[in-house]
Amino acid sequence: MPQENTILVGKKPPMNYVLACLTAFHEGADEVLIKARGMSISKAVDVAEMVRNKFMPQASINEVKIGTDEVLLKEGTGTKRASSITIRISKTK
Amino acid sequence: MPQENTILVGKKPPMNYVLACLTAFHEGADEVLIKARGMSISKAVDVAEMVRNKFMPQASINEVKIGTDEVLLKEGTGTKRASSITIRISKTK
Repeated sequence: MPQENTILVGKKPPMNYVLACLTAFHEGADEVLIKARGMSISKAVDVAEMVRNKFMPQASINEVKIGTDEVLLKEGTGTKRASSITIRISKTK
Repeated sequence: MPQENTILVGKKPPMNYVLACLTAFHEGADEVLIKARGMSISKAVDVAEMVRNKFMPQASINEVKIGTDEVLLKEGTGTKRASSITIRISKTK
């Protein structure tokens, strides 16, 4: 059965997310989605590039999508817009 | 003749690049490439989303590509790697 995993990139060091990604593939995922919002978008791209260039030359980036998410404000007074990215990496056999 | 323009997103405020993009379309470009490296990648995504959502609902994001560039260090002692993004926006008629 094809498996899919999503890794949400946030405030931790990039290598944490690289490891999460490699672990997902190691556990049998065929495809991993790396997602991020706002300032973490740059980090998400770094993570995807590190996975592909340093650790899994057999991986390929299938799709990169950008969009806008509505994010609820903490105060509960409304929403703000934040850009988002989704990078789809798959193991090529 | 189809025209193509490239906007390199750097340290200026996002709105500067949004304006550059709108100007390029206004001057007859059919397609604009928004490029950025490293920490400016998030800003490039914001710029593309602002152009599409706020200013040009008729524009569409055709392609988003990520990659790694070799960047020359200032000291001239070598290169470092930096992630990059290229977002292709086109006017749909």
